[in-house]
Amino acid sequence: MKVQRYRKESEVSYALGTTLTYELIGCAPNRATRIFVNSATERTEGIERLLERCRELGIPVEESDKAFHILSPKGNCYVIGEFKKTQERLEQGCHLVLVNPSDAGNLGTIIRTAAGFGIESIAIVRPGVDYYDPRVIRASMGAVFHVAVEYFDNIQQYRERFPENSLYAFMLSSSMSLAELERREPYSLVFGNEATGLPAEYGDFCQGVVIRHSRNIDSLNLPMAAGIAMYEFTKDRWSL
Amino acid sequence: MKVQRYRKESEVSYALGTTLTYELIGCAPNRATRIFVNSATERTEGIERLLERCRELGIPVEESDKAFHILSPKGNCYVIGEFKKTQERLEQGCHLVLVNPSDAGNLGTIIRTAAGFGIESIAIVRPGVDYYDPRVIRASMGAVFHVAVEYFDNIQQYRERFPENSLYAFMLSSSMSLAELERREPYSLVFGNEATGLPAEYGDFCQGVVIRHSRNIDSLNLPMAAGIAMYEFTKDRWSL
Repeated sequence: MKVQRYRKESEVSYALGTTLTYELIGCAPNRATRIFVNSATERTEGIERLLERCRELGIPVEESDKAFHILSPKGNCYVIGEFKKTQERLEQGCHLVLVNPSDAGNLGTIIRTAAGFGIESIAIVRPGVDYYDPRVIRASMGAVFHVAVEYFDNIQQYRERFPENSLYAFMLSSSMSLAELERREPYSLVFGNEATGLPAEYGDFCQGVVIRHSRNIDSLNLPMAAGIAMYEFTKDRWSL
Repeated sequence: MKVQRYRKESEVSYALGTTLTYELIGCAPNRATRIFVNSATERTEGIERLLERCRELGIPVEESDKAFHILSPKGNCYVIGEFKKTQERLEQGCHLVLVNPSDAGNLGTIIRTAAGFGIESIAIVRPGVDYYDPRVIRASMGAVFHVAVEYFDNIQQYRERFPENSLYAFMLSSSMSLAELERREPYSLVFGNEATGLPAEYGDFCQGVVIRHSRNIDSLNLPMAAGIAMYEFTKDRWSL
C-alpha cells in the first residue's frame, strides 16, 4: 500500500514519533495498520520493545525512508504509526462542544486537557479543523486515542441528539462568572472560534458564562479558556 | 541606525504587526524608538491613525522594506514597532516564578494569561528563554507591555529578595491539590521547565501543589497549568 501525504479524505492518519506511536499501540492497537521505521532509527531498547509488541499484535513493521520523506519532511522523526480513522459517535454524558475551531495545534492542546480532566467526548460543529490531522495528533501528545470526537453540521443537530444537556456557552458578553456558576449535569461546555467567539444567538439557548479577567487583554486564548472551564467543572471529581 | 536581526544582546526589540504596534504605542509609548512601514502597507484608516499618533508623540516613522526583509522574512507583516528593552525590577507582591522556561510561544501565552488575571510581576530563574524575543512579544499579543519581568540567577536569589512570600511549587509528585489548598498572600506560583518540571528539592522550601488529572495524560502543558493556577488564585478578585 502506497504512503501518501495526509489529506482530510485519507482513510488513515499518522502518529509521528516514538512517543505518539507508543500511545497508539498502547491505547488503540486494533486501529494500527502499519509501523514505519527508517534506516537512521537507532535500535534502542525502547524501540526494540515497541517493535516486539507490534510483532505480538500482528502489526506489520516496514522499513521505509520514503514514508518519512513524505510524512515528516523536516526530519527528526524515527518511528511513524499508521492507523485507521474511525467515525465515532458520542454517548450521553458531559461534553465539550467546539464551534468552528480553526487551529490544529489549539485543538490538540484542548484534546490533551480534556483527556486529563476526564471529558472524553468532544463535539465539533462544522466547519472545523480535521481532528485526524497529524498536527492535531501531535499537539494532543497522543491524548486523541483517549477521547471520542464527533462532527455535527450545526448546533441544532447537536441539541436534538442531547436534549437533556445543559449548555454553557463561554462568551465575553455574559454577566455570569464561571467562579459563581451553578452547574447542572449532564453539561456541555460550548466554545466558539479562536478569532470570532460564539455568535450572540447562542445566548438564546445556552447559559452564558464568562471567565472574568482584567482589561489588559482582549480575551484568554481558546485552549486556556477551555482548560480553565474544564478544570472548574471537574475539580471536585479529582480532588479526593 | 541600522536594523539588525534580533539577538539577545540587542538593545531594542520589535513588535511585529499592526496590533502589537498599537499595544506598544498605547501602553509604552516612551519606549518606542521607531515605527517601520513598508511600501506594501495599505494606508487604511487604522494605519493612518497609528501614524498620526506617532507624529503626536514624536516617534519617527520610517518607510523601509529592508527592515521587513530582516525582521519578518516570511512576510504578512506591514507595520513594525521598534522599542527599547529595559531592565525591570519586581516589586513586593504576588508573583509568577518560572524556573528555566524554554519555549518562546509558551512564555508569551503565559504572559498574556498573567496580564489577564492581574499577576503583573514575573520572575524567571535562569537559564530561561529571552522574554524580549519577538516570538514572545507576538505570542503574548502585546501583554508584555503590561507586566514586569525580572531574571534571577537562581531561586535563592529570588527567595532572599522576597522572604515574606509563600512559595507554591507546582509538582506532579505533590499530594496537595490546588482545589483544596489554603492560600496565604503574598504568594509566588512556581513552575518548572516544560520537559523536566521542578527539581524535587523545591519541596523543601515550597508548599507543593498538584492540579489533579486522570492517568490518561502525563501532565498538563505548562501554559495550561500556570493559567489554571492563576485563575484559581485570583478568581475571587474578578468575580465581583
